[in-house]
Amino acid sequence: MSEPFRIGMIGYGFMGRAHTNAYKRVGDFFSDLALRPVLQAACGRKADAVKAFADGWGYASCETDWRQLVARDDIDAVDICVPNNMHKEIAIAAAAANKMILCEKPLAMDVAEGEQMCQAVESAGVANMVWYNYRRIPAVTLAKALIDEGRLGKIFHFRTNFLQDWTISGEVPQGGAGTWRLDSSAAGSGVTGDLLAHCIDTALWLNGSIADVSAMTETFVTERLHAETGEVQPVGIDDACTFMCHFKNESLGLFESTRYARGHKALYTFEINGERGSLRWDLHDLNRLEFFDYTDDSLVRGWRSIHVTEGEMPYMDRWWVPGLSIGYEHSFVHQVADFLKGLETGEPSQPDFRSALETQSVCDAVLKSADSKAWVSVA
Amino acid sequence: MSEPFRIGMIGYGFMGRAHTNAYKRVGDFFSDLALRPVLQAACGRKADAVKAFADGWGYASCETDWRQLVARDDIDAVDICVPNNMHKEIAIAAAAANKMILCEKPLAMDVAEGEQMCQAVESAGVANMVWYNYRRIPAVTLAKALIDEGRLGKIFHFRTNFLQDWTISGEVPQGGAGTWRLDSSAAGSGVTGDLLAHCIDTALWLNGSIADVSAMTETFVTERLHAETGEVQPVGIDDACTFMCHFKNESLGLFESTRYARGHKALYTFEINGERGSLRWDLHDLNRLEFFDYTDDSLVRGWRSIHVTEGEMPYMDRWWVPGLSIGYEHSFVHQVADFLKGLETGEPSQPDFRSALETQSVCDAVLKSADSKAWVSVA
Amino acid sequence: MSEPFRIGMIGYGFMGRAHTNAYKRVGDFFSDLALRPVLQAACGRKADAVKAFADGWGYASCETDWRQLVARDDIDAVDICVPNNMHKEIAIAAAAANKMILCEKPLAMDVAEGEQMCQAVESAGVANMVWYNYRRIPAVTLAKALIDEGRLGKIFHFRTNFLQDWTISGEVPQGGAGTWRLDSSAAGSGVTGDLLAHCIDTALWLNGSIADVSAMTETFVTERLHAETGEVQPVGIDDACTFMCHFKNESLGLFESTRYARGHKALYTFEINGERGSLRWDLHDLNRLEFFDYTDDSLVRGWRSIHVTEGEMPYMDRWWVPGLSIGYEHSFVHQVADFLKGLETGEPSQPDFRSALETQSVCDAVLKSADSKAWVSVA
Amino acid sequence: MSEPFRIGMIGYGFMGRAHTNAYKRVGDFFSDLALRPVLQAACGRKADAVKAFADGWGYASCETDWRQLVARDDIDAVDICVPNNMHKEIAIAAAAANKMILCEKPLAMDVAEGEQMCQAVESAGVANMVWYNYRRIPAVTLAKALIDEGRLGKIFHFRTNFLQDWTISGEVPQGGAGTWRLDSSAAGSGVTGDLLAHCIDTALWLNGSIADVSAMTETFVTERLHAETGEVQPVGIDDACTFMCHFKNESLGLFESTRYARGHKALYTFEINGERGSLRWDLHDLNRLEFFDYTDDSLVRGWRSIHVTEGEMPYMDRWWVPGLSIGYEHSFVHQVADFLKGLETGEPSQPDFRSALETQSVCDAVLKSADSKAWVSVA
Repeated sequence: MSEPFRIGMIGYGFMGRAHTNAYKRVGDFFSDLALRPVLQAACGRKADAVKAFADGWGYASCETDWRQLVARDDIDAVDICVPNNMHKEIAIAAAAANKMILCEKPLAMDVAEGEQMCQAVESAGVANMVWYNYRRIPAVTLAKALIDEGRLGKIFHFRTNFLQDWTISGEVPQGGAGTWRLDSSAAGSGVTGDLLAHCIDTALWLNGSIADVSAMTETFVTERLHAETGEVQPVGIDDACTFMCHFKNESLGLFESTRYARGHKALYTFEINGERGSLRWDLHDLNRLEFFDYTDDSLVRGWRSIHVTEGEMPYMDRWWVPGLSIGYEHSFVHQVADFLKGLETGEPSQPDFRSALETQSVCDAVLKSADSKAWVSVA
Repeated sequence: MSEPFRIGMIGYGFMGRAHTNAYKRVGDFFSDLALRPVLQAACGRKADAVKAFADGWGYASCETDWRQLVARDDIDAVDICVPNNMHKEIAIAAAAANKMILCEKPLAMDVAEGEQMCQAVESAGVANMVWYNYRRIPAVTLAKALIDEGRLGKIFHFRTNFLQDWTISGEVPQGGAGTWRLDSSAAGSGVTGDLLAHCIDTALWLNGSIADVSAMTETFVTERLHAETGEVQPVGIDDACTFMCHFKNESLGLFESTRYARGHKALYTFEINGERGSLRWDLHDLNRLEFFDYTDDSLVRGWRSIHVTEGEMPYMDRWWVPGLSIGYEHSFVHQVADFLKGLETGEPSQPDFRSALETQSVCDAVLKSADSKAWVSVA
Repeated sequence: MSEPFRIGMIGYGFMGRAHTNAYKRVGDFFSDLALRPVLQAACGRKADAVKAFADGWGYASCETDWRQLVARDDIDAVDICVPNNMHKEIAIAAAAANKMILCEKPLAMDVAEGEQMCQAVESAGVANMVWYNYRRIPAVTLAKALIDEGRLGKIFHFRTNFLQDWTISGEVPQGGAGTWRLDSSAAGSGVTGDLLAHCIDTALWLNGSIADVSAMTETFVTERLHAETGEVQPVGIDDACTFMCHFKNESLGLFESTRYARGHKALYTFEINGERGSLRWDLHDLNRLEFFDYTDDSLVRGWRSIHVTEGEMPYMDRWWVPGLSIGYEHSFVHQVADFLKGLETGEPSQPDFRSALETQSVCDAVLKSADSKAWVSVA
Repeated sequence: MSEPFRIGMIGYGFMGRAHTNAYKRVGDFFSDLALRPVLQAACGRKADAVKAFADGWGYASCETDWRQLVARDDIDAVDICVPNNMHKEIAIAAAAANKMILCEKPLAMDVAEGEQMCQAVESAGVANMVWYNYRRIPAVTLAKALIDEGRLGKIFHFRTNFLQDWTISGEVPQGGAGTWRLDSSAAGSGVTGDLLAHCIDTALWLNGSIADVSAMTETFVTERLHAETGEVQPVGIDDACTFMCHFKNESLGLFESTRYARGHKALYTFEINGERGSLRWDLHDLNRLEFFDYTDDSLVRGWRSIHVTEGEMPYMDRWWVPGLSIGYEHSFVHQVADFLKGLETGEPSQPDFRSALETQSVCDAVLKSADSKAWVSVA
């Protein structure tokens, strides 16, 4: 029978819910796993709030100090779902306490922090993972498989964007529970770490390393009320960030993210063009992958709209029947399943901290390029 | 705190999984419900298989005889997830045992059976529901709200289809676990009860009653191996069924279903045209509702593609953030939530058996019309 | 060098313009034709109006009596672009005068008239054609080629509709220049002859003959002002017409047309499903053909969106470069080109009168079925 | 009656055909124009080829030396449809000969040449125009109107790309009739002047001037056979060009063009995001404009797909009926109509040379930025 995998969850916001849901569901659909997640403890600074969260989702206990949680003997893995500025300290302490770590993305505030985190988990020898969940959307996973099979041939272009529109109003505050992502002291950066980081992780996975970047950032709303201080304060984050790059495979990259694209809630897309074929995907219709195969008979060549719901497609043997959609949250279920499988097989699931550090390196180069208005090599 | 709502599940196929998933998840997302589903017992004829199902999903016990299940004191509600030919007997026994009943669709093999089932639950005074889950796709629920607000005005047309392609091969058997839907003795009808019934339920809900129908059915593959008997036997079901109708509101209806539409896994669509506007929806992109508003400024009038993921839209305050999709299975979660809420408020959730009987009446009229090649009034 | 092909155009409405444009353009793009259209004469009852039309488009002369036109020696072909109730008389007279005839669709008011017209042109031995222009949209022509190659295999379904919304208002009159299509004395039928006739012509071409039909018609607005009499009069046409049918190849057909589908200006679509593949097309995006090929590798199977603009695709070597769209009017240019080519080769271009008579037979059967509420065999 | 507008066409390639078609058709659809194009002379170096072109399209005479053409008294306007490296000399001579000039885009090889051309036409006082035809696609013209009405509010983003795939093979030669665009001595630049120039023209028109740019270019295939010299020679053009920019209205721009995007024949798109709304357009479906209106009721807010075929929409009163598409070539007809109308009203049609020079300035800045790997201000 399966063994318990006891989780200590730090944080209880949007991502705390998404991860918890994944832990609760994974066993129902991946019943062959040797490990079974157990919701051992939830942790947050506000006792009432964390208690409500724990009761609602079924965590067995609560903590209000993450150091207490990390110190507990009955926790196998810590899930870090707090603002970016706290990732490093918690991760290092958890590694020291010999806990496995599942850390929300981006890995850290910057490469320097991330490097410390990598060294901590590597020294401790604890399993670790960063929640770049989009790799586990079946259509995205299928894209990876098709590229690895060589179906696209030599790659020329990778373009991707992540467009939202929720911060256009100057009335949206910065700081606080729902809006810490607008506070640079908590988030480090704006859309770069929040949205572009997803694009970069997927790009590195699908198309390999990036050599250099030229970026542009913009802050459209320069002052916002801070929800915690109650003061109007300068905005330190980037509202939009765009960059061009060269991949090491000599293809060109084009990345854009913004929270000022009216009409797009969460338009995350990528397209990759190769000599033999092309692929594209859009989060708004996440069950589809579009594929252009140049080797098709020229008379009937066209972009194919593949509804990625067949049992032979990645992960889809676990769900319903062909044609029936799954949603956003399933990507987290898949990531938990892969992480647990990795523990069984000894083949660590990706991206781990070290892999996520490469994304961080690109983010840092992007911000440096935007600041210096010059091309910057990725370290 | 919440009270237990103890479920006895009869059947453990595709629908058994979908319903069980809904029971397990509803409390996490609808935490304000007074009732909390408890997986009390699973029932199936094959002891090994039902045990595996129960263990996998967490049912507390097993039964191999549904009569035993129905007789148990520790069951509040029976969920009927077995082939159509067993609905009536189980439902009547469950009602007699004072159990609430959640019955998979279609309600029965025919109106006569359905009427008996209605009388049984109504005499017993037990809550009852039929799993026409598509009403609870948020985009479909939003369509209902917009129609009820009068945004379409007088209705002229309702067209809908449900197209699949999984039985084209003559190698697909009839009868048995995965293919009882091709065996008329188990299913009653083919696509009429399986696919068209969904279309009809949605149509009745959105556009009111149907007055009369003219139908055409076809059986493309006339003999198939029977998976249980091992014999090649005549096929008794309809492989395709199409009908035209008049709604009582004087609009025209056009319905089509088939399992021979190559390229469509589960293309379920509807479109409704009114004097002031139109709506259309497609299961393959289930988070979208398309709306044409004739009252828009004519220079910028066009079909709007609404991504039904905003918190103000039906059910969507329970899930993630705008732009992030939910999937097929969520419709069942919503239906459980509404059923439980109905128990609290005393306002029964729909469709109950009596409401589902109207869909059955249309199905019967459709089959009769196809047989007689004449227009048939809906009883 | 090319020889003149002298045209006498009867009528100067929407279709008069579309055909004239085709005559004027064909030589520029089909420069290899042996015949060159010459705009010899335009004919209409109102002298001022026909003069304005002739001057605008460059017709060399005018007539106000079609009998005069038909009698002229300097006319090779007569183009009949007047309301349906005048087709027969003009066509018979033109045939008697030994003119070639290009007749706007539908061929006639009914089969009886159409049969007389066929006999007239066949007796006279004059070339003849009916303007079912949609066969010559390159995407539709490509569909025909793919079907003929056997790419779809055995056919199961053909579904098509033609949806408009321009007559919803009760203020639209019947009769007169722009609205004779609402006047049954001029048009014969409503959407059946106007819209469904196109669907039927394409269906017969792509999928062969129809055996029998069951139809439903509706007239939503039952009285309208008559533009010529100034009186409010009963409406004699069908506002909507739907029918189911059996093709002789044993596939099922589903046809719908209406002028009450809010939001659709001219949504003309068809889809055909076969054992090995499916095709679909939509006039609103007329340069695309969608193709599902079941023989594709199952991992990457999906509907292909073919942008029918490559030089190897039908007619497209005559236009621009790949990716650049053509429009509605080009279908008429292609039809003229094919007609003229047919005169050269002696292989008559289709549909000729006899072929269009089959469409008329289906229309008649449809109207009879709607009237009798019974299945009707196509004569 | 209308006066003749006698055209001398220099060049007879793809664009020579497209412009000639426009001259021949404009009078049929814009019959209210005071001027009527007359195909007076065609000019090209190869006597046979230009004769064939002239005969095919109906030019009254031929020239093999453009200086002869420019010198003729019976020519009112010269249309320059030759490779970019010849624009300047011809334009200056034509202006000196007091001819009106319609010049294919891009205006010149660089700003210096373009400035000379501007001075030439301005000194001579001759009407002039550059064929940035996409402004006259009705959907694009409608976009301009909506922006000018203030429907988008403050603009945040403009993104656009023009993607092709026709030069991926190393077998495509450079130089010569069909491939001079790959020869830098004839074309000046690659995709920058060919494709991006269209994107820039539209962007400047819709969103105002560009302040500065940061660009990246790439040449994927570095050697190609030269069709005229028969030698394998280095490729001097950019195969791909991407740039980021700041518009003077403080919005951000993102531009991409390439001929290595497998699967895209001519995917030209733009999207503009403002505080109150957004617009997007795609050449592959050129009759549609998508519009997101944030002022819509939030419950039914979504991107509207506007089929730009209503009579009240730009240019569409001249064509067919609502729902019926026009194609690529119509943009040229509209441009001729607007040019001729401008001559009547004395309000010059745009873009004239001076306006097109701004596009040239951006192109020059882009190429300079790509070369220097630095941000460059637009002169």
